[in-house]
Amino acid sequence: MPLTAKPLAPIALTQGDPAGIGPELTLMAWQRRQALDLPVFGFVGDIDHLGRLSRQLGLDVPLVACDWDEIGRHFPDALPVIPLDEAVTAQPGRPDPATAPGTIASISRAVAAVRQGLAGAVVTNPIAKSVLYRAGFAHPGHTEYLADLAADGGTPPLPVMMLWCSDLAVVPVTIHVPLRSVPDLLTTELIVETGAIVARALRRSFGIAAPRLALSGLNPHAGESGALGHEDAAVVAPAVEALRALGIDATGPYPADTMFHARARAGYDAALAMYHDQALIPIKTIAFDEGVNVTLGLPFIRTSPDHGTAFDIAGKGIARPDSLIAALRLAARMVAQHEQTAR
Amino acid sequence: MPLTAKPLAPIALTQGDPAGIGPELTLMAWQRRQALDLPVFGFVGDIDHLGRLSRQLGLDVPLVACDWDEIGRHFPDALPVIPLDEAVTAQPGRPDPATAPGTIASISRAVAAVRQGLAGAVVTNPIAKSVLYRAGFAHPGHTEYLADLAADGGTPPLPVMMLWCSDLAVVPVTIHVPLRSVPDLLTTELIVETGAIVARALRRSFGIAAPRLALSGLNPHAGESGALGHEDAAVVAPAVEALRALGIDATGPYPADTMFHARARAGYDAALAMYHDQALIPIKTIAFDEGVNVTLGLPFIRTSPDHGTAFDIAGKGIARPDSLIAALRLAARMVAQHEQTAR
Repeated sequence: MPLTAKPLAPIALTQGDPAGIGPELTLMAWQRRQALDLPVFGFVGDIDHLGRLSRQLGLDVPLVACDWDEIGRHFPDALPVIPLDEAVTAQPGRPDPATAPGTIASISRAVAAVRQGLAGAVVTNPIAKSVLYRAGFAHPGHTEYLADLAADGGTPPLPVMMLWCSDLAVVPVTIHVPLRSVPDLLTTELIVETGAIVARALRRSFGIAAPRLALSGLNPHAGESGALGHEDAAVVAPAVEALRALGIDATGPYPADTMFHARARAGYDAALAMYHDQALIPIKTIAFDEGVNVTLGLPFIRTSPDHGTAFDIAGKGIARPDSLIAALRLAARMVAQHEQTAR
Repeated sequence: MPLTAKPLAPIALTQGDPAGIGPELTLMAWQRRQALDLPVFGFVGDIDHLGRLSRQLGLDVPLVACDWDEIGRHFPDALPVIPLDEAVTAQPGRPDPATAPGTIASISRAVAAVRQGLAGAVVTNPIAKSVLYRAGFAHPGHTEYLADLAADGGTPPLPVMMLWCSDLAVVPVTIHVPLRSVPDLLTTELIVETGAIVARALRRSFGIAAPRLALSGLNPHAGESGALGHEDAAVVAPAVEALRALGIDATGPYPADTMFHARARAGYDAALAMYHDQALIPIKTIAFDEGVNVTLGLPFIRTSPDHGTAFDIAGKGIARPDSLIAALRLAARMVAQHEQTAR
C-alpha cells in the first residue's frame, strides 16, 4: 500500500507541551501540505497561542477555529484548530506546570474524537512528563495515559511501542528500565504477548496478511550456545516457538548485530528487540529524523514523532518537522488501511 | 590521509582455519589487487592446500613460495606464500583439529615477521576457537593469543577491539560476556584504560592529532538523570572526567541511540560503547560487509575481517572478500602512518 494513501477521516493532532517544539512543527507541517501531499489534520489546542507563535516566527499561517466535521473543508486554505478552553500562558522554551490542564485536555479531546468516529487517528505532539507530574498528572507517561483513556475505567490494554521508518519497524520488548533490570524483566510470556500484538497490528493496520517477525537474542551472538548467557535458549527461543504455535511467522533468536543491515531487513516485517537500545540504535542510526513512534495494542491508531519537546530550541523555528510529518503520513496510511478493510 | 596510502613493508596475512573461508577470500582478494589497488601482502600457510583450493574453485591463481623480502617483487604476478611445514589435510567446510598446529604456526610466524620488521602488519583470517580447543589451544581466543605473543612471557597488554568502517569507529568496553554481567564488569578504571588505548592508537596509527572520543551511557537515555539506572552518573561520567584529565577530548555519556546517525558521527573520531551489541549493532547496520576488526593496544598492527570461518559456505566460492579487503587496506593505512611518523 502506498504511503500516501489518503483516509476519509481527519487526523487529530494534539498540542503537546505548548512550550516545546510541537506547535511550531505543526505550523511547518501544514505549510508543506501541498508540496508533500499531506493528509488532512486538525490541531487540538489554544488558537491564540498558535497565532502568536506563527507571527513571532514570521510564518503567518492562517488559522481557523472549527469543529471536527469542518476540518476537511478548511484544510487546504487554513490550519484547522479544534479550540481548547485552556489558554496557554507559557512562552516557547519555558515550560510551565500551569499549562498542564490544557496539555491533558488536548489529548483526551483527540482520543474522544477518534473513539466517536470524528477523527481517524491521534497523532501526539511531545509532552514533558516532569511538567505534568508537577501539576499532579498521575500516569507514568503519555502512552499509559492513552491506555487508561482506552480502558474506560477497566483494565488498560498493554500498549506496545513500535519505532517505524520506511526501511525498518522495530519493537523493544522491555523499554524504559535500567539495563541491569532487563534480564529479569524479560519473560517468555511478555515476549509472546508483545509479538502477538505486533502481528495483529501488522495485519490490521499495515495490510500485511502474514507478518514475519524476527526476534533478537538478549546476549551477544544470541548467547552462542550458552557460552554468552542462558536467556536466549531459556527465554527467547521458547517465545519464538510459542508465537509459531499461534500461527505467527516468528523466527530467531538472532544475534542482534546481524539483524539490521539492508539485506537482513528484507527478511522480516518487524523486529522484536529485547531492550531499548537494541531496538532504538538501529532505527535512529538509519533514520534519525524520519522515525515514527507507533503505539500498538490500543483500540485506536496513535503515532507520534520520535523526539521530545526540545525546549532548548523551541520558538526558534529551527526544529525539523520531518518526524511529525512522517507520523502524520503513517497514521493516515493506517487509517486508510482500516477504512479499506471496513468497506 | 587517503585510505589507499601504500606502506613500504608487506602485510602478513595468516591462513586462519584452512577449512573456513579465509583461504578462498585470500585468493579472491589477490585477484582484485590491480582493480582495487590493494597493498602488497603475503599469505602464511600451506601452499599445496591453497593451490588445490584455487583449482577446485576455478580461480587458477598463480602462487609462489618465497621469503618475506621477495613478497613485494612477486606480488604483481603471483600470490606470495610464506610456506608452512604443517600440511593441511582438512577439506573446505570440514574443520579438523589436526590442522590446529598449522593454524597456530601461521599466526606466530606472521607476528614474528612483524616484530622483526620483515612485515608491517598482521592481518588474520578467521579461526574457529572450538577446533583449536580440541587440539589443546590454551588461549581464550585469537586476540588473547596475539597479546601473549606480544608479551614475550611477561604480562600481556590489554588488547582493545575496535570495529572500523569508513563512516564509523566504535569500541565495546566489555565484549563477549552475558548481558547480565555487563553492569558489574563495567568499571570506571576499565573505561579509562580502554579510552586511553584508543586515543593513543588514533594518534599513532590513524594520524589524528587530537582524537575526539564519544562515550555512550550504559542505560537507556544515558540513565535519564538516574531514573533509568545509576551507572551512567556513577561509573561512566567519572571515566569521561578522568579521560579529560589525561588530556583526551572525551565527551558523554550520551544516549547510545542518538550517537550513530550521520550528523552525530561527524562529531567524534571513535565511539566507546559499554557492551557488545551497543557497539556492533550500529556498525553492522551501516557497513555489514565492509567492517574491519582492529586490535589496539598490541605492540604491532593487527586487523582482521569482521566475520567468522563460515564453514557452511566454505569452498563454494560464494563468500564475499569485502571485509578482508577492507582489513588489508586499513592495515596498510596504519602501517603507512607509522612509516611516515618514523621518517
